[in-house]
Amino acid sequence: MSEFRIEHDSMGEVRVPADARWRAQTQRAVENFPISGRRLEPAHIAALGLIKAVAAEVNAELGVLDKDVAEAIAQAAADVAENEYDEHFPIDVFQTGSGTSSNMNVNEVVATLAQERLGRPVHPNDHVNASQSSNDVFPTSIHVAAATEVVFHLVPSLQHLAIALRVKATEFAQTVKSGRTHLMDATPVTLGQEFGGYASQVEHGVNRVNSALRHVVELPLGGTAVGTGINTPPGFAAKAIEKLSEATGIRFVEAEDHFEAQSAQDAIVELSGQLKVVAVSLNKIANDLRWMGSGPRAGLGEINLPDLQPGSSIMPGKVNPVIPEATAMVAAQVIGNDAAITFAGASGTFELNVMLPVIARNILESIRLLANVSRLLADRCVSGITANTERLREYAESSPSIVTPLNRHVGYEEAAKIAKQALAERKTIRQVVIERGHVANGTLTESELDAALDVLSMTRPSQ
Amino acid sequence: MSEFRIEHDSMGEVRVPADARWRAQTQRAVENFPISGRRLEPAHIAALGLIKAVAAEVNAELGVLDKDVAEAIAQAAADVAENEYDEHFPIDVFQTGSGTSSNMNVNEVVATLAQERLGRPVHPNDHVNASQSSNDVFPTSIHVAAATEVVFHLVPSLQHLAIALRVKATEFAQTVKSGRTHLMDATPVTLGQEFGGYASQVEHGVNRVNSALRHVVELPLGGTAVGTGINTPPGFAAKAIEKLSEATGIRFVEAEDHFEAQSAQDAIVELSGQLKVVAVSLNKIANDLRWMGSGPRAGLGEINLPDLQPGSSIMPGKVNPVIPEATAMVAAQVIGNDAAITFAGASGTFELNVMLPVIARNILESIRLLANVSRLLADRCVSGITANTERLREYAESSPSIVTPLNRHVGYEEAAKIAKQALAERKTIRQVVIERGHVANGTLTESELDAALDVLSMTRPSQ
Amino acid sequence: MSEFRIEHDSMGEVRVPADARWRAQTQRAVENFPISGRRLEPAHIAALGLIKAVAAEVNAELGVLDKDVAEAIAQAAADVAENEYDEHFPIDVFQTGSGTSSNMNVNEVVATLAQERLGRPVHPNDHVNASQSSNDVFPTSIHVAAATEVVFHLVPSLQHLAIALRVKATEFAQTVKSGRTHLMDATPVTLGQEFGGYASQVEHGVNRVNSALRHVVELPLGGTAVGTGINTPPGFAAKAIEKLSEATGIRFVEAEDHFEAQSAQDAIVELSGQLKVVAVSLNKIANDLRWMGSGPRAGLGEINLPDLQPGSSIMPGKVNPVIPEATAMVAAQVIGNDAAITFAGASGTFELNVMLPVIARNILESIRLLANVSRLLADRCVSGITANTERLREYAESSPSIVTPLNRHVGYEEAAKIAKQALAERKTIRQVVIERGHVANGTLTESELDAALDVLSMTRPSQ
Amino acid sequence: MSEFRIEHDSMGEVRVPADARWRAQTQRAVENFPISGRRLEPAHIAALGLIKAVAAEVNAELGVLDKDVAEAIAQAAADVAENEYDEHFPIDVFQTGSGTSSNMNVNEVVATLAQERLGRPVHPNDHVNASQSSNDVFPTSIHVAAATEVVFHLVPSLQHLAIALRVKATEFAQTVKSGRTHLMDATPVTLGQEFGGYASQVEHGVNRVNSALRHVVELPLGGTAVGTGINTPPGFAAKAIEKLSEATGIRFVEAEDHFEAQSAQDAIVELSGQLKVVAVSLNKIANDLRWMGSGPRAGLGEINLPDLQPGSSIMPGKVNPVIPEATAMVAAQVIGNDAAITFAGASGTFELNVMLPVIARNILESIRLLANVSRLLADRCVSGITANTERLREYAESSPSIVTPLNRHVGYEEAAKIAKQALAERKTIRQVVIERGHVANGTLTESELDAALDVLSMTRPSQ
Repeated sequence: MSEFRIEHDSMGEVRVPADARWRAQTQRAVENFPISGRRLEPAHIAALGLIKAVAAEVNAELGVLDKDVAEAIAQAAADVAENEYDEHFPIDVFQTGSGTSSNMNVNEVVATLAQERLGRPVHPNDHVNASQSSNDVFPTSIHVAAATEVVFHLVPSLQHLAIALRVKATEFAQTVKSGRTHLMDATPVTLGQEFGGYASQVEHGVNRVNSALRHVVELPLGGTAVGTGINTPPGFAAKAIEKLSEATGIRFVEAEDHFEAQSAQDAIVELSGQLKVVAVSLNKIANDLRWMGSGPRAGLGEINLPDLQPGSSIMPGKVNPVIPEATAMVAAQVIGNDAAITFAGASGTFELNVMLPVIARNILESIRLLANVSRLLADRCVSGITANTERLREYAESSPSIVTPLNRHVGYEEAAKIAKQALAERKTIRQVVIERGHVANGTLTESELDAALDVLSMTRPSQ
Repeated sequence: MSEFRIEHDSMGEVRVPADARWRAQTQRAVENFPISGRRLEPAHIAALGLIKAVAAEVNAELGVLDKDVAEAIAQAAADVAENEYDEHFPIDVFQTGSGTSSNMNVNEVVATLAQERLGRPVHPNDHVNASQSSNDVFPTSIHVAAATEVVFHLVPSLQHLAIALRVKATEFAQTVKSGRTHLMDATPVTLGQEFGGYASQVEHGVNRVNSALRHVVELPLGGTAVGTGINTPPGFAAKAIEKLSEATGIRFVEAEDHFEAQSAQDAIVELSGQLKVVAVSLNKIANDLRWMGSGPRAGLGEINLPDLQPGSSIMPGKVNPVIPEATAMVAAQVIGNDAAITFAGASGTFELNVMLPVIARNILESIRLLANVSRLLADRCVSGITANTERLREYAESSPSIVTPLNRHVGYEEAAKIAKQALAERKTIRQVVIERGHVANGTLTESELDAALDVLSMTRPSQ
Repeated sequence: MSEFRIEHDSMGEVRVPADARWRAQTQRAVENFPISGRRLEPAHIAALGLIKAVAAEVNAELGVLDKDVAEAIAQAAADVAENEYDEHFPIDVFQTGSGTSSNMNVNEVVATLAQERLGRPVHPNDHVNASQSSNDVFPTSIHVAAATEVVFHLVPSLQHLAIALRVKATEFAQTVKSGRTHLMDATPVTLGQEFGGYASQVEHGVNRVNSALRHVVELPLGGTAVGTGINTPPGFAAKAIEKLSEATGIRFVEAEDHFEAQSAQDAIVELSGQLKVVAVSLNKIANDLRWMGSGPRAGLGEINLPDLQPGSSIMPGKVNPVIPEATAMVAAQVIGNDAAITFAGASGTFELNVMLPVIARNILESIRLLANVSRLLADRCVSGITANTERLREYAESSPSIVTPLNRHVGYEEAAKIAKQALAERKTIRQVVIERGHVANGTLTESELDAALDVLSMTRPSQ
Repeated sequence: MSEFRIEHDSMGEVRVPADARWRAQTQRAVENFPISGRRLEPAHIAALGLIKAVAAEVNAELGVLDKDVAEAIAQAAADVAENEYDEHFPIDVFQTGSGTSSNMNVNEVVATLAQERLGRPVHPNDHVNASQSSNDVFPTSIHVAAATEVVFHLVPSLQHLAIALRVKATEFAQTVKSGRTHLMDATPVTLGQEFGGYASQVEHGVNRVNSALRHVVELPLGGTAVGTGINTPPGFAAKAIEKLSEATGIRFVEAEDHFEAQSAQDAIVELSGQLKVVAVSLNKIANDLRWMGSGPRAGLGEINLPDLQPGSSIMPGKVNPVIPEATAMVAAQVIGNDAAITFAGASGTFELNVMLPVIARNILESIRLLANVSRLLADRCVSGITANTERLREYAESSPSIVTPLNRHVGYEEAAKIAKQALAERKTIRQVVIERGHVANGTLTESELDAALDVLSMTRPSQ
């Protein structure tokens, strides 16, 4: 980095590191924005590369660019799309709000790489950026990256987790336990029913994320500077989006309304909102798991989570629910990222939302965190869970709420008296029912009483 | 209120105002929770009444209740569902987290009213609440109320707003103006294109809200205490939900998984997330409108918003964009309500989320606020907007960005020089192009130059 | 409401209900903003009344108003400040963002009342609003109301809660129990230490809220329309604020910078942030309490919370931790309100933040909710808590983490082996230490072992 | 990385990269948490190193460790505190919620480095971690890092920004412009008054951040595992904290209550709330600046922001307000980070909050972002701002609100008529006053009229 070359742009000359593939505008941005130390997400750089590649191809088809220039650009851009040049994307996330600096970064890197292939000048704006503007390309790249990450990483990870939970739901289908509402002993459930509920939450989460894709696949491309499509030839967007669909396997479409698509980031705010629901679901699951695994002696001790690492630097032998904890921390971050996206999404004015890079960072991080932690939660926690069946049944049978089926025999108020007496006198519900004469007076027979107090049958609707 | 009668419940006796239709448990809750002074939303009370009515009918059909008792309950509950007894629902929103107090409130009021009709005792738990639990009824009531308010108030209001915006989009289709990105002069757009973008945002919002209904129409009813359906006869939920669908005209279904449906409030968190996107959209629209209407002399002065009221207690003659302001404040509240719902939604444990009343309050308020303000925004602001056509065109023609179509003739860098020179020397782009010899040297003809600089043609993709 | 009279303002005539004390501008606002159905908080109306009263007095002193007019205004305003005319403040919270409608509402009501006393015309703008503007009065009223509610309601309630917690900390000072980190058994603590921690959280909360007052007591009054103080006589603000301080007993000061004070609402955003911390603290305390009270049989069962009401409409005898639940719901709401305030606070432009009424609603509600629920938490929950001392000690003694003091005798790794073996073989730590020969080989004597394993001594630093 | 060595911990053997200074537990954590790719912030590693260094010194003083072992540890830890070994801290932020993995990481790296110096075994737990626990060390490290970054980076940056704004306030003290409330023309202000308001916001921000330090300087150190101080010798915490104060120059103190200090993260939630207020302030300032700089032709065009880089990849010559945009994006992120911290802060249970690493990440990032962007905003934006004095005065003089001083001469309602007539007939206020006969009829003289309409005098309270 000690040697430099001189580059120029429409504002003048700039010193650029000798071995950098970027040029003047990237360098200005590097110097202008020493803020966070964080760069674009790799998935984002890949999406930008992909857009430049398909744009070059379409520009050739439409006669905007010479075939050989276009081909050199397309090949160079394909390499960028493979994340081969990520170190040449040095610009901070906190930059110009349109992401123009990063769009110019990809224009410059691709121009340099194409020029190396082609042996003659390739211009970042006039060639690589032809028929495009930062204002349609950059939000398009967010949509492409987000959709790709959702479809190929997040959804499969959530499905993987749902399956792991379903496996446990089946395994624990007959494992009766005390239900808990308000944290207080309630009527019995099976551990399998609880895991089935978790699985259902995650499956609903897949629906949620998929439903948001409906709007995310609408691409602003073709709107150029302000949504009007100025300086883009007819048909450019349709062809380019067709190629993006082919390349990714995701059916992208042109935005219904280019002004909506550039002036707002509503589709990403929506996706983030759905990710937030997934985070909320995972937080609930993580909390239940760690509570059930609490102990070993002074907690609930209902299930055992796999031991992954020593839990304490001072308390020997302690093992902690570290994966549920990491999951809860991811939930917190996703909720926070959603707040950042919401604020940013509400801040658009006229033809452009200029909070794009911060929106991109947060949505892509949220997707990645949820995808990674869902897979870990499945593989390093859920799949290894075992149940303490005896303790679970003991709890179920000791819960005063098992008096509930007696409502229909003795009424709610007498049932309440039975429950309270059992608790106060440390007797079983069965004992108290008999003592209070309900069998003797024929309110119900002993076998009806036994049937009513069978905890496993309480986990199903009455017949 | 100075006279009292004595009521009792399973915990003992309570003094209740003589003319109150509620009984002991409601009274305990009134005394236990003097917190916010806010009660359940009317739409929520209506939904609770409706559930009690259909439950009584199904209980009669299934032989759980005598026909005449059931009929008396159903009729009483129907009156509650018509909001005729709202003053008998005195319990604070901030109460037990399951909403049991409010479920008991409706049980008690309906029992009292039914008893008045029937002339013999009706029990809140054993009769009105038969086959139900607070834990399935209360979240069901939130879903029913939210779905009803969305379908019959919010969506029509948003559609009304979208139409008002579309009308303006047509009216202003040829009204050229300067585009703005980063708040800086950009290439021209039409005012109609902007309003079309707003309409599209609102229409997307309708999609968003509707997509969330998919999960909101899943009802927990039938799960009773912990999701297992204990103490509910087979077929109860299906029949009751069928009747709820008939009564409301909304196709409700039984929850795919009753454990998911009671232990989590994810469907409402999702709906709230979608409302938040609508809020973000409206905030953007409101901001653009008030900026375009800013002035009359020291602002943009592009459009005129209807005058509704004097704007200042000290500055005579001042008129302010009060409806967009109210809209922005609604957006802030909906974003805040979503944060409350998110926190509450993440706080479920085991078989029940016990943050239900605060979730109910926030979701129903958000729906109501958005429905009301959207209609106002349409009727008292958008529909009355007029354009200052001349000023808009002047701005468009003076924007240095109209140099953009020259990129293809002279290249990006020369075009940048032209724009800067025009600005510095206070000349038109046309003048500078000619001065710099581009017509003289044949780069483009004068008529090509005129065509390139036609602002209205810049609002469409190049041909 | 069936009869009307005609009022007029600078925009023309308006029909007003015959018995309304308000006039034309209030009526316009009632009709313009049918949005939420929520009006200003009573504390807010009181603050507006108070400001009008002191302004009238100062206007008389400075010769701006005639003595008798001023006196009539001051007396009328004092009645408003006593909340005697709240029903004459019918305007929705979601109105013009400056609160001008509500400022005019108080101007009009006070003018009418003063006119009734005086027997000759009193003008809402020229007399009641003299030397003021909505733009300084309305934000001043938020500060005055918020400071008053904090000082006289919230802080005393928090102190009351802190004392209740301290009483329990003393009561439970020797009640040893298992510590829990990550929900897993940790080394022993006393229940009193935990309650002391809660008390400390609340006491820190008092500091937090008080520290925010430093900026809340800075009043914008005197800035009038845009912060410059146009149309206000020299000395007006200082005198008026002096009177506000006398009337309330709170030392208000004139804003350091009137442009900061009107263009931003940072002081309220700060106060809301501090309330949010208090909410976070209360949520933690509420969660611990309900977990310790969980059971009675299938939970931790460490403490007993007072029974306040039947807990379930279906499970007889169930009693739930309703006050901690209400507390957690308040926490959710305060966190949500803070998000609304933050969004609103960030939305100011130039000389005025025009999200004032929504900011007012949320901050005043948050203060009220926290004040009320803190007092309830103290009186109806904390004060009645009893400890299950035996169960607590059993837990403490069974926790494998009591091996921790052996680190210094046998090292962390051997201690870990002891803990694991004890757990696996269901033996006590003591047994395993002896079995593994540590006493036999002289690593430690039996009495050193006993001392090391004394759970109560583990609740203090080693000596 | 292709070669490995075998390490072990209390759970067994682990393969560690041959050149890694970390050991078994770090390696387990690396493998357990492949989630975000983000590691601890450098300031956080430095704080951990510092704590280990002072702990070793105190352990030697108190006889817990041998002098030479302690010295080797202290020196090694000092190197870590200088960020010389950051690449040996490979663990993901999303890990165990106590940060135990990172505490063990520093224990292991320091042990290895100390062992290299000393030439004999140094144990991560028994030596480096002596007298400590992750549960007091890790939250202490967050406080130390946060306080250090606030004191030495954030506060100086904010002060720097405040000074830059004050310089402009002075420069523009006589530059009269139109005030704007509701974005509508209001009475005049000076540009200097606006910049003074911004400076005041930032200065208030310094107060806010400083006030939060009061609680941040309370350190949990000495509480060890659960707040009781088990396994720590008397005096350890006091001595260690004294040394931390000396080393950093910040007066740290021992936590008032160790249970509060470990079971909650309220002090950081508080600090984050104050950072959020600063973000809100900066967002307001950034918005005003870019609106005033909007144009150059179709916007307000009141001021010029420095040109830093080309603004558009398609619109030549366009220059955008990139630093205000980056500032607004930072504001969005800080608001989001605060939401994450709030959620995490509310999630503590019993003796420990186990959301620590995500809290650490967000608070330290927020501090860093605000510090960096404040300095940039000062140096690359505010300091280079110039005013378009003529345009500003034109706006001021054309605003109809300059009629306001006439209220006292002709009353509010006549003044409103004058303003409206002037606007409708495109006349000046002066013309209309004369036309309506107010000078002719002696209401005011022509010189009084001139004085009343002097825009600069309107920027001060009337005399």
